[in-house]
Amino acid sequence: MAASIPADSAGLVSSQKLHFSDPLPLDCGRQLTQFELAYESYGALNAERSNAVLVCHALSGDQHAAGYHSASDRKPGWWDSCIGPGKSFDTNKFCVICPNNLGGCRGSTGPNSINPETGRYYGADFPVVTVKDWVRCQARFADALGIKQWAAVVGGSLGGMQALQWAIDYPDRIRHAVVVAAAARLSAQNIAFNEVARRAIYSDPDFHGGHYYDHDTVPARGLMLARMIGHITYLSDDAMRAKFGRELHEGKLNFGYDVDFQVESYLRHQGQSFVDRFDANTYLLMTKVLDYFDPAADYGNDLAEAFRRATARFLVISFTGDWRFAPARSREIVRALLDADREVTYAVIEANQGHDAFLMPIPQYLKVLRTYMRRVALEQGSIADAP
Amino acid sequence: MAASIPADSAGLVSSQKLHFSDPLPLDCGRQLTQFELAYESYGALNAERSNAVLVCHALSGDQHAAGYHSASDRKPGWWDSCIGPGKSFDTNKFCVICPNNLGGCRGSTGPNSINPETGRYYGADFPVVTVKDWVRCQARFADALGIKQWAAVVGGSLGGMQALQWAIDYPDRIRHAVVVAAAARLSAQNIAFNEVARRAIYSDPDFHGGHYYDHDTVPARGLMLARMIGHITYLSDDAMRAKFGRELHEGKLNFGYDVDFQVESYLRHQGQSFVDRFDANTYLLMTKVLDYFDPAADYGNDLAEAFRRATARFLVISFTGDWRFAPARSREIVRALLDADREVTYAVIEANQGHDAFLMPIPQYLKVLRTYMRRVALEQGSIADAP
Repeated sequence: MAASIPADSAGLVSSQKLHFSDPLPLDCGRQLTQFELAYESYGALNAERSNAVLVCHALSGDQHAAGYHSASDRKPGWWDSCIGPGKSFDTNKFCVICPNNLGGCRGSTGPNSINPETGRYYGADFPVVTVKDWVRCQARFADALGIKQWAAVVGGSLGGMQALQWAIDYPDRIRHAVVVAAAARLSAQNIAFNEVARRAIYSDPDFHGGHYYDHDTVPARGLMLARMIGHITYLSDDAMRAKFGRELHEGKLNFGYDVDFQVESYLRHQGQSFVDRFDANTYLLMTKVLDYFDPAADYGNDLAEAFRRATARFLVISFTGDWRFAPARSREIVRALLDADREVTYAVIEANQGHDAFLMPIPQYLKVLRTYMRRVALEQGSIADAP
Repeated sequence: MAASIPADSAGLVSSQKLHFSDPLPLDCGRQLTQFELAYESYGALNAERSNAVLVCHALSGDQHAAGYHSASDRKPGWWDSCIGPGKSFDTNKFCVICPNNLGGCRGSTGPNSINPETGRYYGADFPVVTVKDWVRCQARFADALGIKQWAAVVGGSLGGMQALQWAIDYPDRIRHAVVVAAAARLSAQNIAFNEVARRAIYSDPDFHGGHYYDHDTVPARGLMLARMIGHITYLSDDAMRAKFGRELHEGKLNFGYDVDFQVESYLRHQGQSFVDRFDANTYLLMTKVLDYFDPAADYGNDLAEAFRRATARFLVISFTGDWRFAPARSREIVRALLDADREVTYAVIEANQGHDAFLMPIPQYLKVLRTYMRRVALEQGSIADAP
């Protein structure tokens, strides 16, 4: 391992890929005749295959959850603070596995893949999938890895929604669901922000109705705007005040329409760098997956009734400064779990970082995860494998 | 008066215009060699000219604050619930005057006016003005009308900021400042939302660097996005939930990128209708005026020090559900006024309509305004003029 990589890192990692050749039926009524899932894994599967943890990523995430792709990598995976030897998701005890979701843009089949039926990029023809579709294809993924039951399915935001759906749809295949900064369904305001982001991408003349790959363009302006809108909502007002206040970018007002305040320059930078790493069609798709998520809808709009199918135990975490998926939304989940007589641990973490807090190394948060996962490890006896 | 116009309406009204031919120096260092202000007025000026109330409009407002432009008008002015005979700003007692701000798009000199120096539309060459510039030109406006002192300067949001600036810059010319749903300066989050709105307009290929008038286009897509973003932030999460919930537009999910939820269709409609009535360059300008507003900056960043110049009495109002200009921001104003030993009445109105509440006929809100303004009227003896 390169000297620059910390000792508690998952280390040098690389993506793998699984091909699935049986058709996958989708909620929209269409099917994918075949598909691939790219994934990374950290830590070893035990002989009983009972120590596997499925990490589900959020809107703009991918399978690179921990470790480094090369010794010169500056940034580790998106949940590196939580995954590694001795960390909350302890890779000395667990085999942590993170796939890129169907519709993603990092190697799993998605809009930027070739449609085997036409020989052209899917683009806008890629079906609108749902969290249920994802969970269905992750179950196939588990089959392929020989994992009958996950020790835990975990995730933040849209990732937490997948953990909830797993508990409902495959009760026998999940022992614990760890649901961080999520909601049982989006509010009208959440949907509204997603809709503006989608309109921004759609209005970009370089979008070409989603078939921009064929035109050798990317709807950079639209995707940049979408990300800027998202980014504001992932941070809290307090976090932005602490980070930028009203600091001027060049020490004075310009009396023009270029950048005046630091926060403007930061947002533009965030938007621009997102364009370099993400696909606009995948962004559109992920926002629809969020909007459509509503597990109670299948159970007479009764969330408790949905949870009555579950047998997993739950850890639910929210953050005080998160206004996009506020603690009140987590409490709705907890209340429904209690109404369904399910076992749930709930923690509200004091944090002013907004929705982004779920990605940050907040000591109290990491401790809650670690303590919970230590119990999960003990339960399966794999603690004996620890060094 | 047409039968369809209510008895307590300001009635049929029309815009007037004043031309100013003395150069107006601006904070940016440039000047306007001449300018015009369009305005409406409701109620009669008394002989002493002591009963004039200046209404300042907000970001997307204009001079049409009350009454109807024709008997067939479906919608009255934007503050019609507050202005009229017997209403909070009682036109039997006060002469209520509302100008379109400099830089506006409804008749006052702005980006869509002809620049007398070039014979072409100002477009992007129109100077970035400030609240101080507005107040300076409103003082000239008062001079032209023979009004030495306003009984009150009133406004919501950006309008309230103008009332604050009036109290600081022209202490002798304002007896009361009514400041609704405002802030002493924007937060980083406020600026960030404005910046995304500006980027949306700038990224529209039809914007042509602000000179779209010459190209016979309008940056409709960008302005629509800007308005959609704004609109979400003017409503509260609660208000959106109450209004739309997760109601589906056509009763089912479409599994595509067209409208699924009612809230999406509403937002598109709002965005579209805004494009039909507003100018993109004016929108850009107004957001910069908001961002730049910071009266404390001239007084060592000490807001109380700024208010020590004021002699007016203040009514400050905020709304519980307003997260864009939250009650906490109004309390900052109140605290600074108290620190400066100024007289202030503060009311927080329970309302879940978000920032838009200041435009709505909320009984408690109208009552607070009415009660306060009744005292203002008594004080100047003009109550005797009432029928």
